[in-house]
Amino acid sequence: MTSSIHPLDEALALTSSAPGQFTGQTHPGYWNMVGPFGGVTAATLLQAVMQHPDRLGDPLSLTVNYAGALTAGSYTVQATPVRTNRSTQHWTLTILQADAEGAPVVTTTATAVTAVRRDTWSAGDVPMPAVPGPTAHPAIEHGPEAMEWLNRYEMRPITGALPRAWDGSGDHSLTQLWMRDAPARPLDFCALSALADLFFPRVWLRRAHRVPAGTVSITVYFHASAEQLAQTGTGYLLGQARGQEFRNGFFDQTVQLWNEAGTMLATSHQIVYYKE
Amino acid sequence: MTSSIHPLDEALALTSSAPGQFTGQTHPGYWNMVGPFGGVTAATLLQAVMQHPDRLGDPLSLTVNYAGALTAGSYTVQATPVRTNRSTQHWTLTILQADAEGAPVVTTTATAVTAVRRDTWSAGDVPMPAVPGPTAHPAIEHGPEAMEWLNRYEMRPITGALPRAWDGSGDHSLTQLWMRDAPARPLDFCALSALADLFFPRVWLRRAHRVPAGTVSITVYFHASAEQLAQTGTGYLLGQARGQEFRNGFFDQTVQLWNEAGTMLATSHQIVYYKE
Repeated sequence: MTSSIHPLDEALALTSSAPGQFTGQTHPGYWNMVGPFGGVTAATLLQAVMQHPDRLGDPLSLTVNYAGALTAGSYTVQATPVRTNRSTQHWTLTILQADAEGAPVVTTTATAVTAVRRDTWSAGDVPMPAVPGPTAHPAIEHGPEAMEWLNRYEMRPITGALPRAWDGSGDHSLTQLWMRDAPARPLDFCALSALADLFFPRVWLRRAHRVPAGTVSITVYFHASAEQLAQTGTGYLLGQARGQEFRNGFFDQTVQLWNEAGTMLATSHQIVYYKE
Repeated sequence: MTSSIHPLDEALALTSSAPGQFTGQTHPGYWNMVGPFGGVTAATLLQAVMQHPDRLGDPLSLTVNYAGALTAGSYTVQATPVRTNRSTQHWTLTILQADAEGAPVVTTTATAVTAVRRDTWSAGDVPMPAVPGPTAHPAIEHGPEAMEWLNRYEMRPITGALPRAWDGSGDHSLTQLWMRDAPARPLDFCALSALADLFFPRVWLRRAHRVPAGTVSITVYFHASAEQLAQTGTGYLLGQARGQEFRNGFFDQTVQLWNEAGTMLATSHQIVYYKE
């Protein structure tokens, strides 16, 4: 057993160069097609909030807009608490990278809300689906041609796995899978926000046809407390994703994430570009 | 028949004082408990995007964070296209009001994405529920004590109406209703974004118990084209809302909006504060 740093913690390492100003580096272990896995970009923005000395409370909502792909190398995160109320705090966030001439370019915008939460009446209206446990399904083994970030996650599909044949036979967009970081890592808010973006494009499943696709905007609502995340530990999450509408180049996706005990940890939505 | 201006158009009237800088006035006709109806605030932010001379394409997504209540009177909207790509444009938005000392205070932050859309393969995965048509259900008649903005909308509940008794007997959070502006007004993107916020707090329905509640953040994904909105005209929309998780002071809500022809016009989500 080694004490090496988990790749997600390497990817989320930020150094603060001024109040609310952070510097980070893209991580090759989370590389996607033309930039980092969007889930890790979302997690990095949330990390800036978590590390901000003025933060009030824990994450409640996060919206990330992918304006342009990050290029490999360093980037700047700006995190500003624009308004702090008694129990909620509103954040605006930006990622900037230097262009070829060295001028700063916005690659990503985001907003977040953190909140101090109190115990209240609570209830769920979307119970965890009754599915076999995580070990009942084998983990996907990615081939050498797979995008690198896929190797950073253990995915055990229950239904709605990647089509085996791209033959246009698709008729639904529902995926359910067990998931966790690989290697396993204790869950926290940043890791949870990345996991909310784990699903392959719904349009591939709905059509059984592979077209270029990429997330434009994602929102994560956090229902769990830090304590519940700590209790979840390195356990699996059950993730469920479904497309609602596919129209003229964009589809939306709704996501629910439960822990093995059946606690809803987060819900998420995104709007995704697709070609053709 | 008069040619008076529709109250929504009055509420959304903005004058541009500098590039991307707009001035507006809260409208008494859309007043809620302690500020304007949040849907109209969302519509106002989108209006600033629609009126910006540099806008590319039509609305694709809008996220509005309600940092603090607007007070009655004038406000400033700042709308900045922070990045313009070939077919998408990313916006950051802020509403500011002067505090008692005249200093500008952020009441609302938002981001939006506009996009030039092209005809592609399209499909829906959430068909409109089979429900009786709009005229099968009477419109709600609001009493004199109702919040003023409620009188600006025609609402014809099918299921999940406001509980008749606050007796703690609630057991679900699903509402379906037919809705449109009152008086009727041709649908456009701004009106649609307001309609996405029309539902009373899910926690009231789920508990049959009334507690203070207010939207913290709302996201709207636009699936319809301007042409489809024009075709919808002054017709009714079928709105469906459901809570997913109610936990320690906040619940989330998912929304779908179809026109009478069964076309999904928008999907929306929000996270809402509730007390107790």
